[in-house]
This record gives sequence, structure tokens and C-alpha cells, in this order.
Amino acid sequence: MPDSLVIIGTGLLGASIGLGLKATGYEGRIIGIGRRRDTLEAARACSAIDDFTLDDYAPLRDADVAVVAVPLGAFDAVLRAMAEHDHAGLAITDVGSTKTDVMHAAATHLPDPRRFIGAHPMAGSEHSGPEAASADLLRGKPCILTPPSDPDPDALAAVEALWHRLGMSLLRMTPIEHDRATASVSHLPHAAAVLLVHAAAGHGDDQAWAAASTGFRDTTRLASSNPPMRRDIMLANGDALIEALTTLRDGCDDLIARLDAGDADPLLTWLEAAKARRDAWLVGRDDL
Amino acid sequence: MPDSLVIIGTGLLGASIGLGLKATGYEGRIIGIGRRRDTLEAARACSAIDDFTLDDYAPLRDADVAVVAVPLGAFDAVLRAMAEHDHAGLAITDVGSTKTDVMHAAATHLPDPRRFIGAHPMAGSEHSGPEAASADLLRGKPCILTPPSDPDPDALAAVEALWHRLGMSLLRMTPIEHDRATASVSHLPHAAAVLLVHAAAGHGDDQAWAAASTGFRDTTRLASSNPPMRRDIMLANGDALIEALTTLRDGCDDLIARLDAGDADPLLTWLEAAKARRDAWLVGRDDL
Repeated sequence: MPDSLVIIGTGLLGASIGLGLKATGYEGRIIGIGRRRDTLEAARACSAIDDFTLDDYAPLRDADVAVVAVPLGAFDAVLRAMAEHDHAGLAITDVGSTKTDVMHAAATHLPDPRRFIGAHPMAGSEHSGPEAASADLLRGKPCILTPPSDPDPDALAAVEALWHRLGMSLLRMTPIEHDRATASVSHLPHAAAVLLVHAAAGHGDDQAWAAASTGFRDTTRLASSNPPMRRDIMLANGDALIEALTTLRDGCDDLIARLDAGDADPLLTWLEAAKARRDAWLVGRDDL
Repeated sequence: MPDSLVIIGTGLLGASIGLGLKATGYEGRIIGIGRRRDTLEAARACSAIDDFTLDDYAPLRDADVAVVAVPLGAFDAVLRAMAEHDHAGLAITDVGSTKTDVMHAAATHLPDPRRFIGAHPMAGSEHSGPEAASADLLRGKPCILTPPSDPDPDALAAVEALWHRLGMSLLRMTPIEHDRATASVSHLPHAAAVLLVHAAAGHGDDQAWAAASTGFRDTTRLASSNPPMRRDIMLANGDALIEALTTLRDGCDDLIARLDAGDADPLLTWLEAAKARRDAWLVGRDDL
């Protein structure tokens, strides 16, 4: 494990990484870097970081590992700023929700992109900021690594050790595989949640909202997540999300046709197949 | 409160009604009527009912209130069987997830449909059967009443007292208003959950499933609910659900166009509006 870790961006995920590491007994130094003093101070107040610098990347010089935990829209600027203090002993990883664009930004801005081991820890909350952070947020959840095709072996080992120590199950994909998979199981569900809220709002009166209960609450939970973060993800993964939305739209048309036909048996088969697939998925996932 | 209550169908909802009433200190007799001995015995074993008869509606003669808690597909047969033992002192209510067809069936089969006070308690679970029942399932949740246009006042009072005693918040709608509202906030979210599972399954490999996490779990929870029950609801509320699915399909097309345009500001506004609407809804709903 690194003696000194830098976390750039101490919001929900950045602060949860600090808290999670400390919960494992990690005794190295954790320095936060960010642009907003209040966010950094809140992260320090809850002991997610030991200290911080404001928009100053000099602490990278003494660090073994750096985690970029900023919104997708800030990656270009952050990686450019990091390049100045980068060094051969530094492994870099991130928490970005899309990977094609992140790996491209790393290749563009870093002097040695072989030390940038892209990662997407599949954990979150509809709440944001260090106040919502917790040491358990990441534990037991999947973390998708998208290393470059020729990663630096030491950097890869250091980054794998970090996520592993946080209790995550490591998966490896190419950036394109990652973006298509997350469009399907993460970005499309979020889009559907927002569409469902707008559909209920378009109902025109408050009767629908009064009738809404736990099913609506759970199905639409993701619609309450941070809008600027979600906008960045949607735009960064636009192509894969459009493909997934097209599948959803075609599914609506198919279902409308099924309901029009009024045929009970194929509808039941279709419902049973979805239940069986989802239930089978949950069986193997003790973390959920 | 009635001295003697009959619950027809002792699955998740029927058994939860029995358990919920007893948790309030109700001391009248609760008799279950059903077609499957194992379901009735399980309900009696957990004290949701005191006794039962198998496909025999004679206990209605001594009852003050009857609750029809069978799947939608069984309503016609059950109401026909009830008619034979119906009497002027009996108030009848139900738990059916659609109301236009249920009120029509009551008007068709019962000698005095003015005593049939339709109800839809907005509570459930992806699990089914009396084993999944709980005294708290209904507490604090909305219950939509759809009385006939000229209800029997005593029956209306008895049915309102029953749902009220179970801790539910009573709303009143016409059957058509109910079916449109629930299509929007209940049946469409369920359909979307199933569509999302099929979209992930259509991804072709297991990468998407390995990456799926809590967001996918919550958004698709309803896809694990009882397929025959869901099929009946979808068919019974077909027109309103097709209308809602058309809204969702058009929403997908709109979002695809937004993403194609790549315009950040309208996308952010659209996300913020959904978050604000959902968050405002949750503020007033301590039951959720």
C-alpha cells in the first residue's frame, strides 16, 4: 500500500475512499486536492483526508498513488494540472463513470499514460458531497478496471491493491466494453428513472403522485441523483446511451403491440424470463 | 369495526390485512376463504386468520365485511360465488390493482353493488404468499377508494373504517382516474423495470450483469414481482398502460434527440426538473 495517497476531489466518492482506507487500518498520509475549500474542509472534518491543498498539485510529488475523483467535466483540466507534478513513482487511477473519454484524456495530457489505470467503482448514492460519504460505500461492490493496453506493471499492481483493499471485486474491461455495459445497467436505468418522473409529472394533476408508493420510489431513486454529474455522464457516454435508449424505445413498442394483441401467454413468458434473469443475478451478489 | 371479517384470498395482501388488524388489537373473528389449502393453512399458521373454509363461501352469511384479495383474473368467479351468500348487512371491498374492470365485475355479479366499495391499497412487495405478509405492509401507505356513484352509506363507512384502522391514508377517485394514475406511477414503472432487465439480458454477455450494482437493483426491483399477477394487471389496465408506455417511448425519442444535439444546458434543466419534482414528492411522504 502507498505511504502517501492523494485524492483529487473529495466529494461522495473521494471522501468514501479516504474513509474506507482508514477503516482498514491504513496509516499512510491522505492528502486532498480540490477547488472548493468547504468541500475539502468537510472531508477533513470527517477524517476522510488528513490535510489538503487548494488547487495546488504539488502534493503529487510525494505521493505513490493518486485517485482522480472529480466530475467528468473536470478531467481535462485536472489531468493537465497533474502532468506538471507527475513522476515515475506515481500510479494514477480514477472513479469516472465513463472510460473511453477518460482514457483518451489521460493519453492526451499525461507524460506517461501507462501509469494511468482507469477505474470505475460501481457504487454511489443519490446524495452527494463528503457529508454523504461512508467507509462502507465501496465495500463488496464491483470495480471495473480499464488499464491501457500496455500498463506499467507497478502502477497496475498499486492500483489493484488500492481498490482491493477497499473491499471491491475487480473486473477488467476495455474502455468500450465498459461504456456499453454501464450504458445498459447504469446510465439507461438512470435515464428511465428520469423519464418515469417526467411521465408522472405530465399526468397533469396530483392524483398520480398521491397514489405513488414504494414501487415508484425505488424505480425512480436514481432520478434524485446529482444533475450536473449525470449530465456529464450522459454526454460523455452519448453513443452507447443512445444505443441503449433505442433498445428501451423498441421494447416499449413491442410491449404496446403485446398489450394490443391481449395475448396472455406470451406476456407471462416475457415477465417470467425477466424475473428469472434478475433473481438469478441477485443470488450470486451478496453485496446487494 | 366488524365482529366478523372474511378475507377471500390469503396471499401477501390478504394475510397482511389479517395481521395488520390483529396488531391493532382487533378481537373479531377473521375467516379466510380460498382455493388452495396450503395457502390458507400458512395464513392460519401465522395467525393472519383464525380459521378458513376451502372454496366455500358460507362464512359470508355471518360476516360484516368481506375483503376480496384474489388475483384480478379470479374476480369474476369469486364475485359470482359470493353473490349466493351476500346479505344486506355485508360491506365488500377489495385490493385489486385495477378498478374499472373490478367495479364492472361487481356491478355485473353482485345483487347490490352499492355495497361494493372498491379499494386499492398501494402497498406490495416483490415477494408473494402469506409467508411474505407483515402487519406493517399497509401502515402509512395510500389506499385509493373507488366507491360506486351511489354507495350504500353503511357499507362505505364500514370499509373506510377498515382501511383507516390498518393505518392507511384514504384517497378517493373514480375508477377511470384510478386506472390512469396507477398506470403512470405503478404499472409503467413495473413495465420499465422489466424492459430494463430484458435490455441488460440482450446485451449478449455477462459483462453488463457483473457491472450492475445498487442502481440497477433498485430500478428493476419490480421486475421480480409475481408474473401471473402482473400479467393480469397489465391486461386489465391495457388501455391506460399503452397510453403511459407511449409517453415513455416518446420520452426516449426526445432524450435521444437531446443527446444527439449534445446541448448541455437543456439536458441539465431536464434533469434538475425531475430531481426537484421527485424530492418534493418525498418530503411530504413520511411513509416512504
